[in-house]
Amino acid sequence: MKVVPSDLEIVQAHKMTPIGEIAAKMGLTEDDFDYYGKYKAKISLDVIEKFKDRPNAKLIDVTAITPTPLGEGKTVTTISLTQGLGHIGKKVICTLRQPSLGPVFGIKGGAAGGGYAQVVPMEDLNIHFTGDIHAIETANNLLAAMIDTSILLDNPLNIDPMSIMWRRVFDLNDRALRDIVIGLGGKENGYPRQTGFDIAVASEVMAILALTTSLQDMRERFARIIFGFTYDGKPVTAEQIKAAGSMTVIMKEAIKPNLVQTLEGQPCIMHAGPFANIAHGQNSVLADMIALKCADYVVTESGFGADMGMQKFMDIKCRQSGLRPNCVVVTSTVRSLKMHGGVGNIVAGKPLPKELTEENLPALEKGAANMMHMIKIAKGYGIPVVVSINRFITDTDNEINLLKDKAKEAGAFGVGVNTAWGDGGVGCAEVAELVVKACEEPTDFQFLYPDSFTIKEKIETMAKKIYNADGVSYDPLAEKKIAQFEELGLGNLPINMAKTHLSISHDPGMKNVPSGYIFPIRDIRASVGAGFLYPLAGAMRTMPGLGRAPSAIKVDIDKDGKIVGLF
Amino acid sequence: MKVVPSDLEIVQAHKMTPIGEIAAKMGLTEDDFDYYGKYKAKISLDVIEKFKDRPNAKLIDVTAITPTPLGEGKTVTTISLTQGLGHIGKKVICTLRQPSLGPVFGIKGGAAGGGYAQVVPMEDLNIHFTGDIHAIETANNLLAAMIDTSILLDNPLNIDPMSIMWRRVFDLNDRALRDIVIGLGGKENGYPRQTGFDIAVASEVMAILALTTSLQDMRERFARIIFGFTYDGKPVTAEQIKAAGSMTVIMKEAIKPNLVQTLEGQPCIMHAGPFANIAHGQNSVLADMIALKCADYVVTESGFGADMGMQKFMDIKCRQSGLRPNCVVVTSTVRSLKMHGGVGNIVAGKPLPKELTEENLPALEKGAANMMHMIKIAKGYGIPVVVSINRFITDTDNEINLLKDKAKEAGAFGVGVNTAWGDGGVGCAEVAELVVKACEEPTDFQFLYPDSFTIKEKIETMAKKIYNADGVSYDPLAEKKIAQFEELGLGNLPINMAKTHLSISHDPGMKNVPSGYIFPIRDIRASVGAGFLYPLAGAMRTMPGLGRAPSAIKVDIDKDGKIVGLF
Repeated sequence: MKVVPSDLEIVQAHKMTPIGEIAAKMGLTEDDFDYYGKYKAKISLDVIEKFKDRPNAKLIDVTAITPTPLGEGKTVTTISLTQGLGHIGKKVICTLRQPSLGPVFGIKGGAAGGGYAQVVPMEDLNIHFTGDIHAIETANNLLAAMIDTSILLDNPLNIDPMSIMWRRVFDLNDRALRDIVIGLGGKENGYPRQTGFDIAVASEVMAILALTTSLQDMRERFARIIFGFTYDGKPVTAEQIKAAGSMTVIMKEAIKPNLVQTLEGQPCIMHAGPFANIAHGQNSVLADMIALKCADYVVTESGFGADMGMQKFMDIKCRQSGLRPNCVVVTSTVRSLKMHGGVGNIVAGKPLPKELTEENLPALEKGAANMMHMIKIAKGYGIPVVVSINRFITDTDNEINLLKDKAKEAGAFGVGVNTAWGDGGVGCAEVAELVVKACEEPTDFQFLYPDSFTIKEKIETMAKKIYNADGVSYDPLAEKKIAQFEELGLGNLPINMAKTHLSISHDPGMKNVPSGYIFPIRDIRASVGAGFLYPLAGAMRTMPGLGRAPSAIKVDIDKDGKIVGLF
Repeated sequence: MKVVPSDLEIVQAHKMTPIGEIAAKMGLTEDDFDYYGKYKAKISLDVIEKFKDRPNAKLIDVTAITPTPLGEGKTVTTISLTQGLGHIGKKVICTLRQPSLGPVFGIKGGAAGGGYAQVVPMEDLNIHFTGDIHAIETANNLLAAMIDTSILLDNPLNIDPMSIMWRRVFDLNDRALRDIVIGLGGKENGYPRQTGFDIAVASEVMAILALTTSLQDMRERFARIIFGFTYDGKPVTAEQIKAAGSMTVIMKEAIKPNLVQTLEGQPCIMHAGPFANIAHGQNSVLADMIALKCADYVVTESGFGADMGMQKFMDIKCRQSGLRPNCVVVTSTVRSLKMHGGVGNIVAGKPLPKELTEENLPALEKGAANMMHMIKIAKGYGIPVVVSINRFITDTDNEINLLKDKAKEAGAFGVGVNTAWGDGGVGCAEVAELVVKACEEPTDFQFLYPDSFTIKEKIETMAKKIYNADGVSYDPLAEKKIAQFEELGLGNLPINMAKTHLSISHDPGMKNVPSGYIFPIRDIRASVGAGFLYPLAGAMRTMPGLGRAPSAIKVDIDKDGKIVGLF
């Protein structure tokens, strides 16, 4: 049995290609990008205009079954498919979200893929990278400081301090900042009020970065942000408080997509990383726009399962940007589908229960329904589906064959086995060949709902078609705010459902394909700059916490200054 | 009369030299630095070892008289002296502090020098630069999150929550965060306690960055940070809570000095920017160490007047690092010395009162005492002094001549007129020639006090020799903590006085050279990682606020995406 070293050992032993050579593979010259060290670059937005007459590459969105708390290796699939397409001789770029520092020092450690399917320079990606998330913090928090100062100093906009929805953000897990009182200490300091910090990736500024199409468009999106209301109930925007210009200037470099590379030397554009629950969970539109002009295949990824990230990819990202996918890849694993079939219980940080590492065809057959539902969702958008079975050493041939049959039964265009975690791109060659074929198929792209549906019609369509519910219930708060948003003219915006990723329903305990239930909406909020409404189906945590033994206590330098303990 | 355009107009019209060419002027090859875009670079610390056998350049520290709230153009002197030395054919590098975002969006706008004595790329320097200050925020705030989490989750170190001195930081002016309560909302979130945010440049992490000499030294300094005490009164360090390793990894890129350029193409190493009151107000030791090996002259700057920044340069920065200056330049202006002589009242943001723009020899003669005191302080360290008179259009020849006489009377080695703000480096040629001559003089460097003095002996030496006081008084809190620090073995650390910069005394209203007063110490704190104690003589504001019309409301992009309104 082959022993795969740790992610950090693999990347520290790997010799990277200078980033200028990676850029040259995309047809970029030194005028088209800026170096950030020897292995990172920022790409100028001017290349979009420069290459506008080139044909678009085929666009592939990687999604997954309903994940366990361990994740299903979706990023490994994305990177390995990129490496696999490279292996079979295709010109390919992958586009990915950038990591947040919170998880790096929290429970997860640093990572961008895993095993022999990683993006490098891994240490840099995970720690500060090119500073984009810091720019987001600063833009977000400057607006916050301007709001509190304006209220304190004469309140010329007549802002009701109790109506402010805009929270400060920081890119760390800091539970003590979730719920705080600010402005204490007298009238030099502020008007005391209760508020809190979110993690930066949960901010509307991050969602805006991920959805914007140009510097001027970003300026307009910042201007539209509604941060609170006047005493007489009128919305107040970032433009009215004169923050939108400074926010744009702060984000002037962050808007440029970042170029890095896979372990096998394919370009990777890694840019923006919004939360996939209260935000839409995709890398930036700009990254995709550039990649599509600089390759024949572009592999991108959506957060969580097809009911979450992929649905948002289609109905928010594609709707706003005009991007259209050619193929969807559903990442599946035998062990997780067995769990959906009712055996074992996966807890992050604990060893895998042995029921999941032993052959169990009845459980797998039952749990395969989750995969089949995800295939159905993807096909509903009119796009061909390829299933990538990420194989573990304990998976039996009988199990793999059963899963292949189930995928075909659900209408998958193809299904392949992926062993890239241990083998690199060659381990994803089978899936890559299937993807190439799928991309030649005709597509019949359609959104789940038209813009013209009312807010409730949109939510009900999602609940029935995606979440397999019988209907929707609304708390009084949600009812009131839906009416308010329709009145403010926000009813035309798409819906970004904030719900658990651990079930297709609202309840993380309901595994596989729950049915015969009512999907409950507790509240609804508006990210007008990002351009979506987000109903809340359950309590969403927007600031993670550190635990008793966070990664932060292990990360260090050794005597030669080399990083240790980062994953 | 020549009309000088705005700082932003000057830099936007200026054609910069590619940073690789600037690095080449220093004898650096591409292995010695990393590009951050086309006009910024980070220099590898390996060059210190690589060039260790080269002779050191002459080191010149630029300081000033007691400034008015407008500042005296000390940075203009530093940059113009660099340009002036370049103009007369010398190989020169300047080392500077990097700007904080707080003032950029607050009252001051962006700047690095002014007129034709600036460092570029100005927009980048002022906004994010290479991300160092964000790394400082993250390192500082990770420790804060780890402290609050540790207290909440079993408190294994027995930390008294009411003893925590470590505050969170952010690089913005946000007055509402000065005084806050965190940890509300129940036991998932934290142990509620009162705390606050400081601006990032006021943090001990920033002071450490400015004083460290290597990555391993920085790791050791972080380890020594005392953030609070146990219930039984023992100090608790960042090492004990296992944060020092992660803090170091977060700062791994930030520790590399940043390379930029003056408007006349001399290299400028811009690195670290600690506050000059509660911290020591100097650019990094590492910047100076590298510069000294890559030029014949290095011009650096200390914050505020000679009683503040220069004293800290000598007794903290030089003491810890072994650096030794060859010359001190005292920046003086006629208008400010007239104010010290008792006429006019300078308020930031208001027009200059007309008494200060009319010839007034008696007032100038009286106020010149402030300059003479500063010359005396500098000479006390055994270093020759050159006075740079930064000339304004309203200064008369009689006034300039009087000031020259007074400078010589006080023992200045030379005194020259500087018109570089409007003229560039050629306007500082006279001062540059004097500095070259002064650097050939023998020096007799000595500290103000030996390490072995007690805390009180050190403070009393400073009060009498630098602040011209008759003695020192101590509040009971200060008495108690001085005894505690001596007991903890911290008595050997140098003293970093936290006092106003607007007077050589503790009271900003006491202009010129106050005498016959008692210098009062209210409190004393320890920055053990940075390696100094800081007594507080008055209330120090560590988080500025925005006003009614901050720069933030003017900064924007125009239709071509160009920045407007930044200064």
